[in-house]
Amino acid sequence: MPVLDLTSDPIDLCAALVDVPSVSGDEATLADAVELALQKQAPHLELLRSGDAVLARTNLGRERRVLLAGHLDTVPIADNVPSRREGELLYGCGTTDMKSGDAVLAHLAATLTDPRHDLTLVFYDCEEVEAARNGLNRIEREHRDWLRADLAILAEPTNAGVEAGCQGTLRAEITTRGRRAHSARSWHGSNAVHAAAAVLERLNAYTAREVDIDGCVYREGLQAVRIDGGVAMNVVPDECVVTVNFRFAPDRDGAAAEAHVREVFDGFELAVTDLAPGALPGLTEPAAAEFIAATGATPSAKFGWTDVSRFAALGIPAVNYGPGDPNLAHTREEHVDTRQITDAVAVLRRFLAP
Amino acid sequence: MPVLDLTSDPIDLCAALVDVPSVSGDEATLADAVELALQKQAPHLELLRSGDAVLARTNLGRERRVLLAGHLDTVPIADNVPSRREGELLYGCGTTDMKSGDAVLAHLAATLTDPRHDLTLVFYDCEEVEAARNGLNRIEREHRDWLRADLAILAEPTNAGVEAGCQGTLRAEITTRGRRAHSARSWHGSNAVHAAAAVLERLNAYTAREVDIDGCVYREGLQAVRIDGGVAMNVVPDECVVTVNFRFAPDRDGAAAEAHVREVFDGFELAVTDLAPGALPGLTEPAAAEFIAATGATPSAKFGWTDVSRFAALGIPAVNYGPGDPNLAHTREEHVDTRQITDAVAVLRRFLAP
Repeated sequence: MPVLDLTSDPIDLCAALVDVPSVSGDEATLADAVELALQKQAPHLELLRSGDAVLARTNLGRERRVLLAGHLDTVPIADNVPSRREGELLYGCGTTDMKSGDAVLAHLAATLTDPRHDLTLVFYDCEEVEAARNGLNRIEREHRDWLRADLAILAEPTNAGVEAGCQGTLRAEITTRGRRAHSARSWHGSNAVHAAAAVLERLNAYTAREVDIDGCVYREGLQAVRIDGGVAMNVVPDECVVTVNFRFAPDRDGAAAEAHVREVFDGFELAVTDLAPGALPGLTEPAAAEFIAATGATPSAKFGWTDVSRFAALGIPAVNYGPGDPNLAHTREEHVDTRQITDAVAVLRRFLAP
Repeated sequence: MPVLDLTSDPIDLCAALVDVPSVSGDEATLADAVELALQKQAPHLELLRSGDAVLARTNLGRERRVLLAGHLDTVPIADNVPSRREGELLYGCGTTDMKSGDAVLAHLAATLTDPRHDLTLVFYDCEEVEAARNGLNRIEREHRDWLRADLAILAEPTNAGVEAGCQGTLRAEITTRGRRAHSARSWHGSNAVHAAAAVLERLNAYTAREVDIDGCVYREGLQAVRIDGGVAMNVVPDECVVTVNFRFAPDRDGAAAEAHVREVFDGFELAVTDLAPGALPGLTEPAAAEFIAATGATPSAKFGWTDVSRFAALGIPAVNYGPGDPNLAHTREEHVDTRQITDAVAVLRRFLAP
């Protein structure tokens, strides 16, 4: 089993984490290594295990509890393991998303023995795949109490800025219908693809909203992400499906988002196929406000959906805060500016030190 | 080997042909049976063979030569072999497309020993699949002289009416392009599917032409037959392809058809992916006019593309004329009104008898 030194420079620890491949579904080796390292090097923590997720927590009786979470899994490797260092940059699969965040958390776990708030550290599996396999989802289902906290910090890549709350996402299929006919005698038919022009016109005419919540500006968007119609090269198509994705600000709940999309496409056949609510930033909660102050950063809105929303649904204020440029996630050239790793450790230590 | 009685009632002969399965590429058994029957029962004919195509011809030194052709292959069987008779209807795979036509031709081959025009009868393979495998295509390539004629009659199903010439067909892909972005930050991208609205609007605004040639009205059509765009459910698509099919009257040649489509979609990226010219009806040619008179029918335009166009390209006037409802072709319920078989034999005998 690979041996991890949690007390080493977190940049080196990040490289060591990257060098243990952990594509979603195949995190056991890395989870075992993290668990063993915590057991040996952070004896002040209580350890818990759920599948390939490892939890470590203090039980100091503090007034507040802060949960820090990072997923151990990565997207498939693209010739970018093992890691390599080029000056200030560390390259490799997961350097940004999110083994640099994991390294920050694991290093703090071992070196912050007397934190101001009780801590729960969660290293979990299967974040990069469908929601049903998500390790946090499993823990929420089977050990809801393990997630108890006053603030959750997800160490997802944010370039070491604070991204608060997150937008919701709704997916819907809008179907236009017609009547099949041989394309040589098209007047016997009715073309469902031609009818989809009206759906696309609605999208072209749509003006997305911007909303300011707690100083974070959420910018919505309504986009076709797929269009598909056609039976054969000599047949007038009788069906065309436009799949749209609505990213909505967290002042709308799921029902309001659906009502809005139905209004935009009034008169069309529409089926909602996916709906995940967003999360309000919750920055006025005391623990969140204290963290923001420690970072000295101005929080901004998170546009993508993240597990922040899961904590929001549990009534726990949650933010994304971690090293790494999110635009480099899932790319072959994935890398992290190692100074952000050092900075993130310093900021979190300032927030959590006694 | 199945034995075919060419001198029997052509309705029974049609049933016998249907009962020898001959899905495209698997016509050898039927081609062998046809060849053997012609050899035994039509000794006045010269026999030629190319792959699974059988040709039989007279060499009487007549002034004109009429070529009669039928394909032996069928689309895949759909629980509709063997044939079954219900009153005047004969059911089974190929009853319409086009073993009833084959039965008419084979019966005439054996029973019309002294025709007014020299005859070439062609029973060929692989008409129902891609053009490159078409038996007539192979014969044209390898034995161009075998197809020499003053008139070609394709016994494709026309409900025993005369369908003259055929429309051409052009397929083109019109591509709109954009810039990918995460759908949560869609303003960084440019949506190619939204851009396709303008392509569909052109189609919706298009008015198809009708043209009268030799009394046949050709009705054109321009239809989207496929639309496809989308990268992933959370990505703004950077490409959308609309495939259109233009069916054009035979007064336009291929180049004119392409120029027209390029004009309609002026300003868009367009690639022609398939182009087959049509065929002028050619009904003013003497042999064609004589045949029309023998049928007593008013010719109409053929909308679908057929091998008629191949003969037109060779400078040979060609018509479709055969028993069977073309709308029943390729259906599970395929059947032929047997009276059309009897009628077609009578009409062709009237045209060809001395």
